[in-house]
Amino acid sequence: MRTLKLTIAYDGTRYGGWQVQPNANTIQAELERAIYQIVGEEVRTTASGRTDAGVHALGQVVSCQTTSSLSASRLVIAVNSKLPDDIRVLQVEEAIESFHAIRNATRKRYRYRIWNANIMDVFQRQYLWHIPIPLDTAEMKRALEFFRGEHDFMSFQSSGSPRKTTVRNMIDVGFDVRTVMGGQEISIELEANGFLYNMVRNIVGTLVWIGRGNESAAWIPSLIEAKNRREAGMTAPAKGLTLVQVWYDEGTSEAPHQAASIHT
Amino acid sequence: MRTLKLTIAYDGTRYGGWQVQPNANTIQAELERAIYQIVGEEVRTTASGRTDAGVHALGQVVSCQTTSSLSASRLVIAVNSKLPDDIRVLQVEEAIESFHAIRNATRKRYRYRIWNANIMDVFQRQYLWHIPIPLDTAEMKRALEFFRGEHDFMSFQSSGSPRKTTVRNMIDVGFDVRTVMGGQEISIELEANGFLYNMVRNIVGTLVWIGRGNESAAWIPSLIEAKNRREAGMTAPAKGLTLVQVWYDEGTSEAPHQAASIHT
Repeated sequence: MRTLKLTIAYDGTRYGGWQVQPNANTIQAELERAIYQIVGEEVRTTASGRTDAGVHALGQVVSCQTTSSLSASRLVIAVNSKLPDDIRVLQVEEAIESFHAIRNATRKRYRYRIWNANIMDVFQRQYLWHIPIPLDTAEMKRALEFFRGEHDFMSFQSSGSPRKTTVRNMIDVGFDVRTVMGGQEISIELEANGFLYNMVRNIVGTLVWIGRGNESAAWIPSLIEAKNRREAGMTAPAKGLTLVQVWYDEGTSEAPHQAASIHT
Repeated sequence: MRTLKLTIAYDGTRYGGWQVQPNANTIQAELERAIYQIVGEEVRTTASGRTDAGVHALGQVVSCQTTSSLSASRLVIAVNSKLPDDIRVLQVEEAIESFHAIRNATRKRYRYRIWNANIMDVFQRQYLWHIPIPLDTAEMKRALEFFRGEHDFMSFQSSGSPRKTTVRNMIDVGFDVRTVMGGQEISIELEANGFLYNMVRNIVGTLVWIGRGNESAAWIPSLIEAKNRREAGMTAPAKGLTLVQVWYDEGTSEAPHQAASIHT
């Protein structure tokens, strides 16, 4: 039995999220079907986190076990040949037997993008939240900085997925603004040792509330202190959210020639 | 009666091209339906060129006449509210009465993009031609330079749309390569006083034939000289092609406050 670490990208638009469920087409169902067609056995996959319907991924990480003897680079090509074109396996690596994509994850980075201009870009309509009214990006950036470091993020957790602790360490944040015709594109990045349910989308909804002038950046510390979801802003739409990267402890996978395996 | 100049963008993926036809959903049909819903009269639209099924536009120009008294900036908002989200009106300008989007066009610029890497980018799958085998971009760039200037482009015209003359003036060409995971993205731009049917896609198919090492760049002058479509390369797929911009003589439209009308 081999344990594998797969890195996958997907356009979440057409899917009911990651996890297999009875009445929706999901990323996990497509991936497990494609793997089955190649290795001839039912393989159960685990993703670093269950992205919701409409959420995208540039570097989702998935663990699974198989008896297949196909090489990692062959598996990339073969599984992709069975997947729809909005899901791609980018890389397959051999992992240590106990490797688990959720339990071993040490850090994750998400990106949320907003199209803050009158007219939506037709080519980006599935990937950005369109907000046609002006946003104060300087104030949003100041607000974002308050999230750095270890905090109790209870005010930014949607109900439905209780966790033992709501304390997380926000390792890095990023805020980027690019001028576009009639406005600006805003890219917000959040990197933490873990995320609560809808945490990125709730933080972004709160930043937009500030950007619209309803509150100042200094509202954030009191909001964190409140530990009450009802005090924070709305949940931003799923389509603007992309899981960018997931990190693991060294030694969980063996990929001496990463670049080569991507090229094959 | 007013004559209007509309600048529109569209994702061509879902459409059977620009022109109204009986058994396909088209950009023109959607636009004329949306305009009808706003102005209450049937308005016949003319585009600078009939893009084929799957071809995209960043700046297609359309002329039409209407008795509506709605301001240009109101028309942008109103017509967009009736259009599907993969078609957007970017700008409406008042034009001189005789303005005609085909006859008055002096120059057009197209962009063709190729994803030359093993694994397709899921977010770009509808907008670039995926070629997973290596391409010699230096040789392709050399070949492209031979197209500059006035030539008879008969060898690059697909049958079905005969024109009086097949001579065109290639005013500018551009070739850009960007490194991506596992390969490169190639962007080819062509700007001319006019284009024959499938001319950009036939030139790109020929450049790819050269990039794959089948011929050298020096093949191009003899190919132009041959004036025979069968000697040139294949027609590149529609989805990689975007109409970027169309130019007109000064004085055909009046837009003293262009930026303002886009912002409204």
